[in-house]
Amino acid sequence: MSHVFVLARRPVGLPQPDDFDLVELPDPALEEQQVRVEPLMISVDPYLRGRMSNARSYVAPFEVGQPITSAAIGRVVESNASTIAEGDLVRGEAPWATSYTTEASSLWRLPSDVEVNPSAYLGVLGMTGLTAYVGLVLLGQVKADDEVLVTAAGGAVGSVVGQLAKIYGARVVGSAGGADKVGGLAALGFDAGIDYRAVDFSEALSASFPRGISLFFDNVGGSQFEAALHHTKDFARVLSCGAISQYNDTELPAGPRGLEGLVVRRRLMIQGFIVSDHLARYGEYLKQAIGWVQEGKLTSLETIVDGFENLPTAFVSLFRGANVGKLLVATQPQEEG
Amino acid sequence: MSHVFVLARRPVGLPQPDDFDLVELPDPALEEQQVRVEPLMISVDPYLRGRMSNARSYVAPFEVGQPITSAAIGRVVESNASTIAEGDLVRGEAPWATSYTTEASSLWRLPSDVEVNPSAYLGVLGMTGLTAYVGLVLLGQVKADDEVLVTAAGGAVGSVVGQLAKIYGARVVGSAGGADKVGGLAALGFDAGIDYRAVDFSEALSASFPRGISLFFDNVGGSQFEAALHHTKDFARVLSCGAISQYNDTELPAGPRGLEGLVVRRRLMIQGFIVSDHLARYGEYLKQAIGWVQEGKLTSLETIVDGFENLPTAFVSLFRGANVGKLLVATQPQEEG
Repeated sequence: MSHVFVLARRPVGLPQPDDFDLVELPDPALEEQQVRVEPLMISVDPYLRGRMSNARSYVAPFEVGQPITSAAIGRVVESNASTIAEGDLVRGEAPWATSYTTEASSLWRLPSDVEVNPSAYLGVLGMTGLTAYVGLVLLGQVKADDEVLVTAAGGAVGSVVGQLAKIYGARVVGSAGGADKVGGLAALGFDAGIDYRAVDFSEALSASFPRGISLFFDNVGGSQFEAALHHTKDFARVLSCGAISQYNDTELPAGPRGLEGLVVRRRLMIQGFIVSDHLARYGEYLKQAIGWVQEGKLTSLETIVDGFENLPTAFVSLFRGANVGKLLVATQPQEEG
Repeated sequence: MSHVFVLARRPVGLPQPDDFDLVELPDPALEEQQVRVEPLMISVDPYLRGRMSNARSYVAPFEVGQPITSAAIGRVVESNASTIAEGDLVRGEAPWATSYTTEASSLWRLPSDVEVNPSAYLGVLGMTGLTAYVGLVLLGQVKADDEVLVTAAGGAVGSVVGQLAKIYGARVVGSAGGADKVGGLAALGFDAGIDYRAVDFSEALSASFPRGISLFFDNVGGSQFEAALHHTKDFARVLSCGAISQYNDTELPAGPRGLEGLVVRRRLMIQGFIVSDHLARYGEYLKQAIGWVQEGKLTSLETIVDGFENLPTAFVSLFRGANVGKLLVATQPQEEG
């Protein structure tokens, strides 16, 4: 038997733990080339909120009564496949379940010759890291003379964006909510941090960017997005990666005032992107990122919530910014160390 | 003596004719390499509104008490230069004046071997045409499978955008205000037109773009910009050329609702641009555009207001969309024909 979280109902506004139901499902018999996996670390991500609504988007919505799925690291406990053996650590799109059955071909076996914590393959060495790389490097073409602002800088993607900006020699300022998060940015190499909840954000941007922002990596949308646009310099590039401040809005959120005139006068480029369009670049990223991790230039920042049963509350906590770095749920108690 | 329009005061909101003063200035003696020019056709453009305000922008603001300047075709009436002779037709940045004195090197002599109306060098063969080309072709990379929306399609730039889109094989729909303007779009080759004042614009977009807009060339901003964004397809490119609907706003205009989420989900690219950053491409454009004009694929659409003294009222009329195509003021009565 497997315990599985399914969508009980579509959330309205901020998701609630009881938008999810825990059900028991029998384990099917393994077919040819299938394996059974027990998730160890489950990735909990803001974009899942979009899939819980019934709106047209870039991935199909979750269906009510069906499992929530996200990226996870798991251990293969039974294998009917030639390519993956019992005991292998794998990454795949997994249901929020204590075990699941899938085609071996849908899984990626973690490299066994690299000494990193497996959870890194959900964070800096996974889609989170690739997201930062795609936005900042491939689309944003960060250069050493850039002055970068990244919002949600203490979050999963933002914390990697800041570190990559430093690796590429740029100056980078991060905004985050709360003194603790902002305090942590220095250790990641950020040149400065702004606690957007504690200050006048526009004034803080004026102080941090006297010459204007040349590259803006945004994860939040809303009032920070608007203020940052007004602090860009000519020809700034704006990479739109997410809008977590608006994901629970029940009405169409207000747009950034003065956008149209600003975009023309300053020749701004605003580019939205989604990591799944760029999976072909994962190999190139992973190779470099492993090197950066080994050189100590790229740190994995994680918040790990213990206990499979805490998946719904962990997910809800994303929207009050409870996590520092990548938010993961460990299905089994973590070992010391 | 020359009669010159100077800025009497900075307009607040919609400009008024008495924001301008007509003054008399003596003609200075010609220095070495200078010429005296009498403007024949003066270009009247929405972007001049920005220069009448005292805000930081990409060109210095006009000063109160100083002449308004814009592009003009003129005839050289006196020359102290070796490169330009009396009688030559030239294009240059000119004061709104009955005559002016300038360096010969600041002027561009019209080609004498091309049979087109000189006014075309202010429109389809001038910066107006280059603006359309830069946005649609160089930055927008229009392709034959594109579905293009252009706003202010009956205006100077928009009417060229539509014709270029057809030259490149795309489908193009124009929006304009009023049945007359919309009716004129078919003759320019537009596949369809939307009278944004007469219909529900969002519904009209749904009908015109069942598969979504893939390339959006915007000249107006505001509610049309917002509606069009919501009718884009994935990976649409948005070229922001102007925001005439907002140039007279006295407060920061509202932004397009839902922008941030939309940009990410649909991977939109919004690019603002200004033609003066791309002057190096003028030669390449002019050569092709002369060919298109001679083949009858590119038509010069102009509204010519007679009389130098009507410059201020002509300028003000831009903001109620009174012009079809390029708005020009002829300083002297036009000949028949």
